[in-house]
Amino acid sequence: MEILDKISQPRFLDIPTFMRLPYLPYEGNYYDIDIGLVGVPYDGAVTNRPGARHGPRAVRDASSLMRMINTATGVNPFEGLDIYDIGDIYPDRPFNIEEALESMSKQFKAVHEAGIVPLSCGGDHSISLAALRGIASERPVGMVHIDAHCDTSEGHLGSKFHHGAPFSNAVKEGLLDPKRCIQIGIRGPLNDPDLWKFSYDSGMRVITMQEFESMGINYVKQEIDRVIGNGPTYITFDVDGLDPVYAPGTGTPEVGGLTTREALSLIRHIKCKDIVGGDVVEVSPPWDQTGNTAMVGATFMYEILCIIAQGMQSG
Amino acid sequence: MEILDKISQPRFLDIPTFMRLPYLPYEGNYYDIDIGLVGVPYDGAVTNRPGARHGPRAVRDASSLMRMINTATGVNPFEGLDIYDIGDIYPDRPFNIEEALESMSKQFKAVHEAGIVPLSCGGDHSISLAALRGIASERPVGMVHIDAHCDTSEGHLGSKFHHGAPFSNAVKEGLLDPKRCIQIGIRGPLNDPDLWKFSYDSGMRVITMQEFESMGINYVKQEIDRVIGNGPTYITFDVDGLDPVYAPGTGTPEVGGLTTREALSLIRHIKCKDIVGGDVVEVSPPWDQTGNTAMVGATFMYEILCIIAQGMQSG
Amino acid sequence: MEILDKISQPRFLDIPTFMRLPYLPYEGNYYDIDIGLVGVPYDGAVTNRPGARHGPRAVRDASSLMRMINTATGVNPFEGLDIYDIGDIYPDRPFNIEEALESMSKQFKAVHEAGIVPLSCGGDHSISLAALRGIASERPVGMVHIDAHCDTSEGHLGSKFHHGAPFSNAVKEGLLDPKRCIQIGIRGPLNDPDLWKFSYDSGMRVITMQEFESMGINYVKQEIDRVIGNGPTYITFDVDGLDPVYAPGTGTPEVGGLTTREALSLIRHIKCKDIVGGDVVEVSPPWDQTGNTAMVGATFMYEILCIIAQGMQSG
Amino acid sequence: MEILDKISQPRFLDIPTFMRLPYLPYEGNYYDIDIGLVGVPYDGAVTNRPGARHGPRAVRDASSLMRMINTATGVNPFEGLDIYDIGDIYPDRPFNIEEALESMSKQFKAVHEAGIVPLSCGGDHSISLAALRGIASERPVGMVHIDAHCDTSEGHLGSKFHHGAPFSNAVKEGLLDPKRCIQIGIRGPLNDPDLWKFSYDSGMRVITMQEFESMGINYVKQEIDRVIGNGPTYITFDVDGLDPVYAPGTGTPEVGGLTTREALSLIRHIKCKDIVGGDVVEVSPPWDQTGNTAMVGATFMYEILCIIAQGMQSG
Amino acid sequence: MEILDKISQPRFLDIPTFMRLPYLPYEGNYYDIDIGLVGVPYDGAVTNRPGARHGPRAVRDASSLMRMINTATGVNPFEGLDIYDIGDIYPDRPFNIEEALESMSKQFKAVHEAGIVPLSCGGDHSISLAALRGIASERPVGMVHIDAHCDTSEGHLGSKFHHGAPFSNAVKEGLLDPKRCIQIGIRGPLNDPDLWKFSYDSGMRVITMQEFESMGINYVKQEIDRVIGNGPTYITFDVDGLDPVYAPGTGTPEVGGLTTREALSLIRHIKCKDIVGGDVVEVSPPWDQTGNTAMVGATFMYEILCIIAQGMQSG
Amino acid sequence: MEILDKISQPRFLDIPTFMRLPYLPYEGNYYDIDIGLVGVPYDGAVTNRPGARHGPRAVRDASSLMRMINTATGVNPFEGLDIYDIGDIYPDRPFNIEEALESMSKQFKAVHEAGIVPLSCGGDHSISLAALRGIASERPVGMVHIDAHCDTSEGHLGSKFHHGAPFSNAVKEGLLDPKRCIQIGIRGPLNDPDLWKFSYDSGMRVITMQEFESMGINYVKQEIDRVIGNGPTYITFDVDGLDPVYAPGTGTPEVGGLTTREALSLIRHIKCKDIVGGDVVEVSPPWDQTGNTAMVGATFMYEILCIIAQGMQSG
Repeated sequence: MEILDKISQPRFLDIPTFMRLPYLPYEGNYYDIDIGLVGVPYDGAVTNRPGARHGPRAVRDASSLMRMINTATGVNPFEGLDIYDIGDIYPDRPFNIEEALESMSKQFKAVHEAGIVPLSCGGDHSISLAALRGIASERPVGMVHIDAHCDTSEGHLGSKFHHGAPFSNAVKEGLLDPKRCIQIGIRGPLNDPDLWKFSYDSGMRVITMQEFESMGINYVKQEIDRVIGNGPTYITFDVDGLDPVYAPGTGTPEVGGLTTREALSLIRHIKCKDIVGGDVVEVSPPWDQTGNTAMVGATFMYEILCIIAQGMQSG
Repeated sequence: MEILDKISQPRFLDIPTFMRLPYLPYEGNYYDIDIGLVGVPYDGAVTNRPGARHGPRAVRDASSLMRMINTATGVNPFEGLDIYDIGDIYPDRPFNIEEALESMSKQFKAVHEAGIVPLSCGGDHSISLAALRGIASERPVGMVHIDAHCDTSEGHLGSKFHHGAPFSNAVKEGLLDPKRCIQIGIRGPLNDPDLWKFSYDSGMRVITMQEFESMGINYVKQEIDRVIGNGPTYITFDVDGLDPVYAPGTGTPEVGGLTTREALSLIRHIKCKDIVGGDVVEVSPPWDQTGNTAMVGATFMYEILCIIAQGMQSG
Repeated sequence: MEILDKISQPRFLDIPTFMRLPYLPYEGNYYDIDIGLVGVPYDGAVTNRPGARHGPRAVRDASSLMRMINTATGVNPFEGLDIYDIGDIYPDRPFNIEEALESMSKQFKAVHEAGIVPLSCGGDHSISLAALRGIASERPVGMVHIDAHCDTSEGHLGSKFHHGAPFSNAVKEGLLDPKRCIQIGIRGPLNDPDLWKFSYDSGMRVITMQEFESMGINYVKQEIDRVIGNGPTYITFDVDGLDPVYAPGTGTPEVGGLTTREALSLIRHIKCKDIVGGDVVEVSPPWDQTGNTAMVGATFMYEILCIIAQGMQSG
Repeated sequence: MEILDKISQPRFLDIPTFMRLPYLPYEGNYYDIDIGLVGVPYDGAVTNRPGARHGPRAVRDASSLMRMINTATGVNPFEGLDIYDIGDIYPDRPFNIEEALESMSKQFKAVHEAGIVPLSCGGDHSISLAALRGIASERPVGMVHIDAHCDTSEGHLGSKFHHGAPFSNAVKEGLLDPKRCIQIGIRGPLNDPDLWKFSYDSGMRVITMQEFESMGINYVKQEIDRVIGNGPTYITFDVDGLDPVYAPGTGTPEVGGLTTREALSLIRHIKCKDIVGGDVVEVSPPWDQTGNTAMVGATFMYEILCIIAQGMQSG
Repeated sequence: MEILDKISQPRFLDIPTFMRLPYLPYEGNYYDIDIGLVGVPYDGAVTNRPGARHGPRAVRDASSLMRMINTATGVNPFEGLDIYDIGDIYPDRPFNIEEALESMSKQFKAVHEAGIVPLSCGGDHSISLAALRGIASERPVGMVHIDAHCDTSEGHLGSKFHHGAPFSNAVKEGLLDPKRCIQIGIRGPLNDPDLWKFSYDSGMRVITMQEFESMGINYVKQEIDRVIGNGPTYITFDVDGLDPVYAPGTGTPEVGGLTTREALSLIRHIKCKDIVGGDVVEVSPPWDQTGNTAMVGATFMYEILCIIAQGMQSG
Repeated sequence: MEILDKISQPRFLDIPTFMRLPYLPYEGNYYDIDIGLVGVPYDGAVTNRPGARHGPRAVRDASSLMRMINTATGVNPFEGLDIYDIGDIYPDRPFNIEEALESMSKQFKAVHEAGIVPLSCGGDHSISLAALRGIASERPVGMVHIDAHCDTSEGHLGSKFHHGAPFSNAVKEGLLDPKRCIQIGIRGPLNDPDLWKFSYDSGMRVITMQEFESMGINYVKQEIDRVIGNGPTYITFDVDGLDPVYAPGTGTPEVGGLTTREALSLIRHIKCKDIVGGDVVEVSPPWDQTGNTAMVGATFMYEILCIIAQGMQSG
């Protein structure tokens, strides 16, 4: 397989595309491929520390550490599948949040209509709403969501759209089936006792760090299976679901999160064969002094890629 | 509640008081409030890396991440209690360690006499002695002490006072009841086989990392309950009790410490209703390249605040 | 003078207000004072690296290094003037750039109407437009502008407002008299040969780094005198006017800028007695690994304060 | 014991020899001592990020934190043993990898022939081959190997020697008995499904992170006992066996590794009395922004020293 | 012009090719273009701190700050010329310095034979020898060389090739005409009083920092004109020619070097129309905490590109 | 000369003594040598940011960049002189400033009585007083003093000794002849208009940055000659005399200082043959993210060494 030549070279060589894959950006249309790794360098929806717009470049650079075979699961995602770096999605008018989301949604739609399953690298968490608008307009999908925050809040600072509200909006827009959504790693002090109310009321399965610790990881894996089943499912990985020592480079860190080993184990467990897309978001390089967050971001993109691929390969 | 307005704003706004609380520093006397968050930027007693004098500013800045409700325990510490940032305690004559401690002790006394329970942010660990002199002169108190070091050593470098000896001095001064003291997270190589002797001989309960790992965290929680009971108790949290990856910004790091999740679980467990004060010490910003130590310091101040508050609220 | 007590204490003590001045934020109205130091933590208009929203906190912290008397000029700005930290100006609706600017403009108007001369700390350079709307609506003012960029460009990315266009908009809105504006330190490669056209066409005096070097600093000082004369004048200092080694923590650095000594000399030279306001902008802490940019920002706030004050003191 | 005087001084004093031990470098011959701590600042065999040549200086500096008594195990390695810092081993001709290894091998031979058990600080992992050539030419030895990588690959980039192949070469050269070798912490995606083949085929016991997690640490300890028995054994600790949060300063990090507590527990468990040498490798200071990797490196050198010493002391 | 579309986008978008130019790497042969920007990520010849292998990626990333028109000189290098990022040159056998240089020399030869003028980004300074072998085998060329070191030393550590000797070797191989070589910025303490002897004896013009300061920059510019004349000339820019505050990210820093403004002025002065190639070397990202070195590297690549281009455009 | 062997090795090798000189620490007495490089890791007298206690180790490490011959002046300080690293001077009782100074003074006395000219590496500036007590008790000496601050203030925070007052105390103790003292680089805002009064009143020559710039460096060199003449003279170099971009790692930075090139030129100019000692102080590694301050410190130690040596060599 040709990809091997490139990714067996020294990691510091050449242009950093995602995982050193060939680069096939949008040029009037997208190529006909299976999975597209796409950067979404938009952070106009953050409420605290900005910088995630620089995430895709940093993750692309770090992703040269990724290789062909997932030794933990045996999956080779490149086996029989066309996987490319398809460039960046970025809004025409980034200074207006509604227009920005609309613009990115259209671009995700084009990816989806080209038959490409998108695996995005944010950008802030608002980009998941744009991705879901592109992917899930035909029918609501389920979701595995690793994060410190539910991201199902109401409007904030005069806007119903922001990086703390993509999934309440997605449910309201009919893009997510809340009964098939599971949120893991939730924690941190709140101002409003009702902030997680939308998640609970809509029927999402919320697993706080307290429940995670008291019930154990195997129980959580079973809950993932139970909640998402085999229907179409989106995987979204906010790096702040991890403890800040693993992912300091992010905008809204919360002490006391998942370890990378726990999160790897959760993602690798996913058995659903119909993964319609995924993302890794909130990697903010200016706060990532050691570069570990970018490396973690690249690693989880690879792990989610393996899950998407094994579904396709088994199909 | 008015506090909510302030702490629901973007976190980068305005002056960084502790947890964005109103600022009521000493001005001839202290106001009549319930709990006072106080900075103690003194690091004249360190034996290795200095810098903890810059701790209070860094922790105040990071503490804007804190919010109202502890979602793990349900506690809202601000419910029915007057909690303020009461400014800094700092010695008049910092260049002489004995005079410095004496000066700070008097200031803590004034806080105590104003009926305020102090929750301090150091500074090095010597400030706990000053705090105990202010709080515990009426009767010895118990202590939950998380740290890599027992801090009960003898004199060093020509001084009986230094940041490795606050608690031997406190016992000798009648401020601590060693039978009601528990020290958790103790580790690291020693020069003197008798360095921990004071702790053992005086009857403190010393839980090394080896015992922590072999007996398990639930056992340790039971030991906390058993040792401190319901009497008056001080909580002191040296960030070097954590592994250095969680708290690199400290003066005497020791590899192999507690995780933040373990420490959160220990603090949240404390059931004693009579917490007479607390502190978070040894946050040293010049060694805290990622800012994680300051964020951890702010988080643990919040968690200790919740413990103090729930005792008062239940009273 | 009372201020002396505070600013002669150790610099790491207490809450970091600007220059350790008393804190008098807006509470329904502003107090009646002479000069107000104000944070404007808005960076929603940047086109490259974000982070200037964190500028005011970092500059406030660094500004504890500032003291009473300017030993280079002999000015004591606090002599006979009421100078305070008046808190932050921040938009209600930060996610929409037009609304954000409008909101900040109103707040600057309130400062101005309270008779306070504002000296702002950004935030990105778009905040200067908001400040000028607050200050200069009665008549256009002149400007001393130190920057790598003219910031007089046209619309970009679908918005006529952004941090590269405050001064073309200000001229169009009648807030600046371009004939009384001088821009110093201009450099860097351009995409559009006409990008500086607005500055030239409107009659601003543009001094590129090439002209600065070939004509010498004394000539530039004479040009400042000649251009601004004695009319009402605004001083705006973008830290990227300095070479990036002096101010790495900024969003759009350009190699080959002013040294701090050159910029200090330029600011100290200003003889105009009618300075209506000023700002230091584009300090972006997440890119300021050494903290030097924040310290430089604080230093230039102090120097501009001295210029404002000496005009008032001589009045 | 005289050593105590030195290592009870403040840690920032004097010249940083390993653990503040007396310095007895090679001067025509080596002194007659028991254990020699030796720096090997060679990184000419790395395939990704260089910098481990700066490891020995950084680890020596950090090792001032080490002290006399291992409080976890009770061992005092300095009791009855002559332990010194014996300086550095460095090749005459570093620009040619084969000559470099040959030169270092001869120097290790001289250490061995002087009756000194070497405990090395790399440098990259290729130095283990040089050390084994010096120590194990009489008969093959066993090995406890903690690492993310098996380091038993074939030639790469035109060289059969590089930092990913010391142990396949060592087996082929008759220096290691693969049946008595155990590799722990192995993980990370691979390009070649057969990359670990040499380890498996030769009979090494490979414990991946997946097996480590599923079987548990006590099982792994039993496997160490079973595999190495009581024969002559080398201990090699590549800091990338740890998760990158504990050891960011290394050349080939892999997310999802051992915690320091797990690794400490493994090393402290080693019961074999015949440890013929050991090393800590791949500490790369230019990537170690927090200095934690150097501190971890020093800590594990101390722990391995205790294991070597307790074997000698019991002999 | 098509290039404008790309380079007027936000700088954080898409794949970082040099200056956001189209990417046309070697694929069996090179395309027929005018100037090729090429990465040479080889640092196997350094004698002190490694890391320059990571230079090309960092400089490519920073080079997104570059734009079309050089406002200092008016040059638009892209006007009428085909300029591309032509990928990386890297040796097949990096572990042997002689083979590595030979391999890179052949690749530079292929660039040259395709009619492309190479502008390289190192890598260490040994790559200049490889470039000269590719470009100058027909006849010796002149050189403008900015550096702290003459790089004309003899063999070191058993190798006649290393990053301190490319130009003595180039003279001996008939690639450089020493009478047409000028070296500027030379400084730093030496071990061997004869270390610069080759430069002097062969007739190179060596301008130390002392001479630079005493004679002034205009004199140095005249010397450049005088020495290189109008013959074929290579421009090599070692970032350590700058003072370390401008370029901390390098392997052999020497205090007291050129400012970026001085160096910009020198490069912009070059009037020779026959520039046969150029390079910027010794950018070492792991030591470049602020990223300023990479930005400086990108800036000087752009300035050298303008000099090369204006020669071609005038031809 | 034997020293050459050591200092021509790769710079990362072996134990970092100052300039890789042989190490001859005090062991009951000092050896009989000419010049002793000595670390003084005491920072108990700082008033702002601590950390200079870590200066000697960092400067020793960086000083491996130094070599034999000063190419700017032609001096080889090692020619005919015995120069060694004589270890550290550190107080027995560091927690009491008066006792600490007394203890260090005695140790400097012992160096002086052994006939060694000390060249110290601080530590904070209070160590100069200890050095002068050791060197100058026989008669007052002159001084070349490069610094941002006069360091001749009165008592502060309850102590007449602190790092802002060594030279007022030295004059009062009869150790300095103020008429033969010159202070260069003075700047920064003051609280007390009389803070520099002692310098002026006692007759020291104070050259502020304003005077430095307006009169020019050649005038300042003449003033050095005029003030110190040929009498016994001490050279003290506080790295905060430099602009903070050159020396960020220091405790009391002031924007707008000397460049390294200016300071090199000043030191190299010193013609006095009777230099009785010197120091480089206030290098504070925890604030020195790039390591440039340590490198600058090492460079200025070398330059002062050359001045001391050329006096001795000419004698």
